[in-house]
Amino acid sequence: MFICPLPVTKRDKVLLGHGSGGKLSAELLRDVFLPAFSNPALCRMDDQAIMEAAGARLAFTTDSYVVKPLFFPGGDIGSLAVHGTINDLAVGGADPLCLSAAFILEEGLPMETLRSVAQSMGAAAERAGIPIVTGDTKVVDKGSGDGLFINTTGIGIVRAGISLSANQARPGDCVLLSGYIGDHGIAILAQREGLEFETRIESDSAALHGLIGAMLAASPAGAIRCMRDPTRGGLSSTLNEIAAQSAVGIALQESAIPIREEVRGACEMLGLDPLYVANEGKVVAIVDPAAADAVLAAMRAHPLGAEARIVGAVTDRNPGLVTMRTALGTTRIVDMLAGDQLPRIC
Amino acid sequence: MFICPLPVTKRDKVLLGHGSGGKLSAELLRDVFLPAFSNPALCRMDDQAIMEAAGARLAFTTDSYVVKPLFFPGGDIGSLAVHGTINDLAVGGADPLCLSAAFILEEGLPMETLRSVAQSMGAAAERAGIPIVTGDTKVVDKGSGDGLFINTTGIGIVRAGISLSANQARPGDCVLLSGYIGDHGIAILAQREGLEFETRIESDSAALHGLIGAMLAASPAGAIRCMRDPTRGGLSSTLNEIAAQSAVGIALQESAIPIREEVRGACEMLGLDPLYVANEGKVVAIVDPAAADAVLAAMRAHPLGAEARIVGAVTDRNPGLVTMRTALGTTRIVDMLAGDQLPRIC
Repeated sequence: MFICPLPVTKRDKVLLGHGSGGKLSAELLRDVFLPAFSNPALCRMDDQAIMEAAGARLAFTTDSYVVKPLFFPGGDIGSLAVHGTINDLAVGGADPLCLSAAFILEEGLPMETLRSVAQSMGAAAERAGIPIVTGDTKVVDKGSGDGLFINTTGIGIVRAGISLSANQARPGDCVLLSGYIGDHGIAILAQREGLEFETRIESDSAALHGLIGAMLAASPAGAIRCMRDPTRGGLSSTLNEIAAQSAVGIALQESAIPIREEVRGACEMLGLDPLYVANEGKVVAIVDPAAADAVLAAMRAHPLGAEARIVGAVTDRNPGLVTMRTALGTTRIVDMLAGDQLPRIC
Repeated sequence: MFICPLPVTKRDKVLLGHGSGGKLSAELLRDVFLPAFSNPALCRMDDQAIMEAAGARLAFTTDSYVVKPLFFPGGDIGSLAVHGTINDLAVGGADPLCLSAAFILEEGLPMETLRSVAQSMGAAAERAGIPIVTGDTKVVDKGSGDGLFINTTGIGIVRAGISLSANQARPGDCVLLSGYIGDHGIAILAQREGLEFETRIESDSAALHGLIGAMLAASPAGAIRCMRDPTRGGLSSTLNEIAAQSAVGIALQESAIPIREEVRGACEMLGLDPLYVANEGKVVAIVDPAAADAVLAAMRAHPLGAEARIVGAVTDRNPGLVTMRTALGTTRIVDMLAGDQLPRIC
């Protein structure tokens, strides 16, 4: 019901799917932004840029948040904006240092809404121990925005000896996932469409730098090849990016992927595939098999990784493709998200 | 005609004036954001945060750009977004290192518009020598945005020995201004309202880090107390902030402030005061009188400072107030912008 088919003609206008994190987003990056901005840090195409500066390696990442509705079970646009940017630093192996916060407000937004969102951001930043140190506010006339958009941008310091990138996966590596997938997307969708389930599904929005720090500390340098948080486009898009950038295959085991019963049920009812549904508090790691047990144990010892699993392996077959061995024993290709399954999810 | 009067009742909704850079913006910062995010770097309330990290002092600044129209004489939203954030780093005494770029696109935006803006950003970044190293794109449904909003966030390295802040102005200091004021605001307004003047007025949008580097190099450490780029809210709001934060008076000489004849004429016709009109390529510096001539000479030797002048002095009278000796010999108070003279100027 929410699948927006790709037009086959040349895309001369921006489509909702260009913000999906899937194929159209990749196309926009390749056709418009990379040619305009080209430089080595950007071309790495990870979730964060990493630069040598002042004798350290700085990580730098930006995200705008346009989630609708602003408040949802398990979070709101403010806490999401703090968690999302912290996570994009952390998956680069960086200790987050600070955040900026920039608001685009629509004229007429209730001041109480803004105050709630700001307080939630402040509380999320304080819980995470990462201060919001600079900001900006713009106001657009009524009808030119949608209540409230937030940009957060973050700086981190990459840990010594750590170098993670989506082009480092090697055949034989294990694919680790920190927990249940699909919670965030289904929580948003249920709130937006007024759907009610027996159990309330909450967003998994959370700051992952503590979990990721524990994973890095539990393994020798280089054993974790890369990490990603599977947000827009879900687990499938994240793994497809890694498979493409590392020119390897990734083989998933469906039975190993943790999905809550209620999320599975909601997806079936709505015609969604949980592999494409956004998460905001999960991490995927590609790990040297020799270190996988130690990393998994470190994940399970952390509250945000209690349900961590090995969900697949990197292979030299089908380079660039993600495949999945289904519960029925068949194998299917898990393609990158085409179009937009669920707009304005983050 | 564009003055939006302040409602006297409690402001329970966001007004356009909350984005003006004037009194309402300051109120929003004080009442909503500072209580929610409070930390020492943010409370400095300069145009950029400065933090010790990795043995260096990092400058960090963010701005969203919602200017309307997207293209205007002398620039566009893309080049403006590059220049504005470079300038906010430079006025903190930092050498800009890199930028992020985050886009919020409205569904249906012509791809050609996006491509033009991206190319302009890339060209501005290349001219300035500051790469755009990371980015993000979100798309909102038609009617929930206005074509295209951009956030740029920047990192810089503060020069050794340099410590600029708006609380460092001292009585006796000189107020230096790098050139003509009001060009940007009038260029935008003319384009937006379809006004035609005999001479086309162009935005002064420019990257100031070269000019500012020359000013710092021409003076001993500490001689330049603070610098600001007088954008939203114009020269008046910038000087009011410095006067308030340093608890000093600032006395301007109207005859010394460079304003183009055509800008003066447009302002008279439109009922605007050029002191409140935005600039995007000008810097104000508060300078030790012993170093003022050397700094002024360095400014005039740079193409972006050819029209630099000493426009006033810091005094111990009227702390917190900006006053101006008019051409008629009278003195008037130059208050901070109240409400919004011209929305969506940057």
